[in-house]
Amino acid sequence: MRRSIEFFLFDWLDIEALCTRPRFADHSRETFASMLQVCERVAAEKFAPANRRVDTQEPRMEGERVVLPDCAYETARAYVETGLLAATQDYAFGGMQLPTVVETAANVFFAKGGIGLGGGGLLTVGNANLLLAHGTERQRDVFARHELSGRWFGTMCLSEPQAGSGLSDIITRAVPDGADHQSDPLGPRFRLIGSKMWISNGDHEITENIVHLVLAKIPGEDGRLPAGTRGISLFVVPKKLVTPAGELTGERNDVALAGLNHKLGYRGIPNTLLNFGEGRYAVRGAAGAIGYLVGKPGEGLRCMFHMMNEARIAVGAGAAAIGMAGYEASLAYAKTRRQGRRPGPAGKDPATPPVRIIDHADVRRMLLAQKAYAEGGLALALYCARLADDKATGTAVESRDAASLLEILTPIAKSWPSEWCLEANSLAIQVLGGYGYTRDYPVEQYWRDNRLNMIHEGTHGIHGLDLLGRKVRIDGGAALDALCARVQDTAGRAARSGVLSNRGEELAAALQKVCEAARLAWATDVPEEALANATPYLQAFGHMVVAWLWLDVGLVAHHAASASPGGADIDLMRGKLQAMHYFFDYELPKTDAWLRVVASRNLTCAETREEWFGS
Amino acid sequence: MRRSIEFFLFDWLDIEALCTRPRFADHSRETFASMLQVCERVAAEKFAPANRRVDTQEPRMEGERVVLPDCAYETARAYVETGLLAATQDYAFGGMQLPTVVETAANVFFAKGGIGLGGGGLLTVGNANLLLAHGTERQRDVFARHELSGRWFGTMCLSEPQAGSGLSDIITRAVPDGADHQSDPLGPRFRLIGSKMWISNGDHEITENIVHLVLAKIPGEDGRLPAGTRGISLFVVPKKLVTPAGELTGERNDVALAGLNHKLGYRGIPNTLLNFGEGRYAVRGAAGAIGYLVGKPGEGLRCMFHMMNEARIAVGAGAAAIGMAGYEASLAYAKTRRQGRRPGPAGKDPATPPVRIIDHADVRRMLLAQKAYAEGGLALALYCARLADDKATGTAVESRDAASLLEILTPIAKSWPSEWCLEANSLAIQVLGGYGYTRDYPVEQYWRDNRLNMIHEGTHGIHGLDLLGRKVRIDGGAALDALCARVQDTAGRAARSGVLSNRGEELAAALQKVCEAARLAWATDVPEEALANATPYLQAFGHMVVAWLWLDVGLVAHHAASASPGGADIDLMRGKLQAMHYFFDYELPKTDAWLRVVASRNLTCAETREEWFGS
Repeated sequence: MRRSIEFFLFDWLDIEALCTRPRFADHSRETFASMLQVCERVAAEKFAPANRRVDTQEPRMEGERVVLPDCAYETARAYVETGLLAATQDYAFGGMQLPTVVETAANVFFAKGGIGLGGGGLLTVGNANLLLAHGTERQRDVFARHELSGRWFGTMCLSEPQAGSGLSDIITRAVPDGADHQSDPLGPRFRLIGSKMWISNGDHEITENIVHLVLAKIPGEDGRLPAGTRGISLFVVPKKLVTPAGELTGERNDVALAGLNHKLGYRGIPNTLLNFGEGRYAVRGAAGAIGYLVGKPGEGLRCMFHMMNEARIAVGAGAAAIGMAGYEASLAYAKTRRQGRRPGPAGKDPATPPVRIIDHADVRRMLLAQKAYAEGGLALALYCARLADDKATGTAVESRDAASLLEILTPIAKSWPSEWCLEANSLAIQVLGGYGYTRDYPVEQYWRDNRLNMIHEGTHGIHGLDLLGRKVRIDGGAALDALCARVQDTAGRAARSGVLSNRGEELAAALQKVCEAARLAWATDVPEEALANATPYLQAFGHMVVAWLWLDVGLVAHHAASASPGGADIDLMRGKLQAMHYFFDYELPKTDAWLRVVASRNLTCAETREEWFGS
Repeated sequence: MRRSIEFFLFDWLDIEALCTRPRFADHSRETFASMLQVCERVAAEKFAPANRRVDTQEPRMEGERVVLPDCAYETARAYVETGLLAATQDYAFGGMQLPTVVETAANVFFAKGGIGLGGGGLLTVGNANLLLAHGTERQRDVFARHELSGRWFGTMCLSEPQAGSGLSDIITRAVPDGADHQSDPLGPRFRLIGSKMWISNGDHEITENIVHLVLAKIPGEDGRLPAGTRGISLFVVPKKLVTPAGELTGERNDVALAGLNHKLGYRGIPNTLLNFGEGRYAVRGAAGAIGYLVGKPGEGLRCMFHMMNEARIAVGAGAAAIGMAGYEASLAYAKTRRQGRRPGPAGKDPATPPVRIIDHADVRRMLLAQKAYAEGGLALALYCARLADDKATGTAVESRDAASLLEILTPIAKSWPSEWCLEANSLAIQVLGGYGYTRDYPVEQYWRDNRLNMIHEGTHGIHGLDLLGRKVRIDGGAALDALCARVQDTAGRAARSGVLSNRGEELAAALQKVCEAARLAWATDVPEEALANATPYLQAFGHMVVAWLWLDVGLVAHHAASASPGGADIDLMRGKLQAMHYFFDYELPKTDAWLRVVASRNLTCAETREEWFGS
């Protein structure tokens, strides 16, 4: 996989150009590549061998403790030692000032080795980044700094048992803690009371402390919680209380582990139900979890989106990484397993030895589909990470453009790999046949692990609504316009390329259909009609986006292959071109069926009455 | 589900008409319905509550024994007590002379309650039916009779570790057992030596004996095994030897349990590796498992297809049943879980209470899709079972027609529900969100259980080759012609119906495209070109077939709804019509993308060289 990642980074996304920016001036292709090499090695040596163990030795509760297998501790330590947690931070903050795109690529190796391992490093980084953006200087110094050093790990606490995707209905309550609550050096001090569900890494003993970022509502003067998402505030709530200097005070905060969720996969990360402020660990003379306000009251969700948008791209990258893991495992199997014979003009000749299954056309189809899905997902994640760098460090124009593109691409970056790299994992099982259905091979675990990705960080349905309900329409369609410009640019270059001109035309036609479908969906300006088929729209949009990126990649590969037909990378380039052709021939045509119901505002599903569902 | 099954059987497939045939003369709607009721009750009371237990208490080896949880024994006993094992057999043979279509429907309840429970009754019935068709009178009396009474259970032993789908490469060897081997009353006696892989119910203590049907090759005079599938013979090999009167002799046959496969799902059925004749249980003074030839030497595979074709329809019915289980579970959840609000012209109003999630359009889409997949799969299985009855008991013309249709529909009946009811189970998880990803709800198990169905009894790839390589072409296309006649008949009736005339046109167009694609695939008469996209062809063909059945069902539902708009069944009829509309609007259009590569003989996958797959 490293060759593909380096090709994407250096040849396609030209990340060496970032080194001309002051922030990255000390860096070079060599420093980037060496980071990737280290991460590839640590992931292969420490993560991959432990991946089955965390699956079979699921987290369990022993009294009030979460028990994890040793390898969970060892991989977390190995991850911290790579320095990845602080890789993108300022030198002054102990960081390396690496671009986000390199950090994202480096993390792909770990996700491929074991998606649930490493102690949830990405959550910790996202948590710290939020505090760096929205916290006070003291909050940054006390909480973010110790997260980025790996001394403490972080969580995000949004969902509640009665409110999963519906955050406006959360009922965790935050009340001012004492008369002096405004003058705490760590920030305005509150007591939190409520339950938080689906909290990844919500409790463990990998680090000496855990930094929870918690959404809660501050009651009004009437004692009632404000309605809607505008009433949500954000708090930093440490598991163990800390001094303003960042040392443990020795007091346990009132945050109790109420249960573990027993999951289908992704088992290296304990998933918890946490009770804040139930009084089990009453502290400083009272029940209530002590937390410090981050940002302004009522702006909690806006702050949290900082973390969620990062996390969404990371989810997509992780899904693609698991797709790559299944692809490589099934490719290796297909190259050695012998079975059956190819059809010949005179039928099959049983006197010849059986062929390796990679020689069957349908096995090649399943491998090429996996390659197109997994590498396509990878390209998408890296493209978005590169945009994050442009947003943060590009010129004003580059930054604005990147911000627009990220708005509209984030739902795709999260949802597309989650859906199609899961399908890739199913194909990996299919390549292995009966063996793939057993625990003797890793592919069934990949498939189970990957199934989570369509659910967490916003379900498919949520992202469909976000895309068609908001992102294609914000700022008068500015984000969609920015995307169209880039897609058209690629299509235009393909049209002028000669050999790939058909693909350029197909892409331009798909783009046009996707835009037209959105227009027709909203033609009556009735949200319930426009959004009735938001998920099929998300699927079609995603396929168009990935076709665009494959063509963009294909143009680079074509150029490289033409320039150096005998070069060392020729097979890699041919493989990229072949995956691109697969995507255009087998996948892009699927968009018609999805867009059909969007453009016609089909209400078959929406109008099905509840009583008709009976069977 | 029973109401839908009764609607399919009585209103759509008119199985009461079968009662005019002499074989079923004692039966009536009442006897059929009472069998279904009994099975529904036993499945609900005994199977469903045990389904999670067999998942968590996986079969394990203790010394040479397979240990199963108590519920595996209890459900097997309950299944035997329903009388289903012999339900379709002659009265003289202890049977009830029930039609196959009723037996199939009855089994759906058990598969829905717990696909791996009941001791693998369908395998036992299939095994016995093969012996009834191809065995000697003594073999029928000794082996089949005791299988159908539930005293012994049966297996099918085809695959070997080195030869899964490639049966021509099996190396299990059968040599004549002594000079008197031709005169054994149980059939020509051989000694078998070899390993058989993926043997469901290959060992257990649920019954006092196990009847293995084993494919093996008889060496030629040069001592070498004949090449190809034409060299395969069939043997009945009991785990414990029996007298010609069907009593145990007290001798253990030389069949050893070599291992259990640890599967992703479907865990109620122990899946085994068996060593035949390794000498562990040397018997009558020698190593080698004693087996009796069934049918003629070299005709083993032809005989085995008797069982395989039955099993393939049963696999499809089972996949549909699991689809129904997930559908019902997610429907129940969607009706009670409250979350979020519907989009209104003025946005969402947080002051209103959250709605039940069934009120979200995308949740309705996921429910209606599940309904269309699962009930569509059920309709397909029942239609094929009805054809099996016509083949066995219809007039000569009916029988010939049914045989033709079964030839071409069997690959669809097996593969379509395996693929789309798995997708239904994934949607069931998605409806439940995070909860669906936990073991607190049953849907994740359904998804794991169902994943097997695309693999066993012939993989998707195998069925694609069977369909496009053989079934659409046999007898000059006679089977395809028979199917076209039925599809056109339905399309014609729809066209004349007025309100469903569009659907009739869409179906006719889809049929035409499916036929045309097959013609174009074979236009160059080069198998490697024609079959390069056999799996996408299988998918398109399957969607066309299910659209046809949905329209056929829809016409009946439409008629019933029009005739009795205030009737008790009106919601059931509306639901069927809605699922049909969903299928035509959301699913049938997908066939274009699949057929495109077939019709153009796209060789992108086939021509991808091995070295290009590197990443």
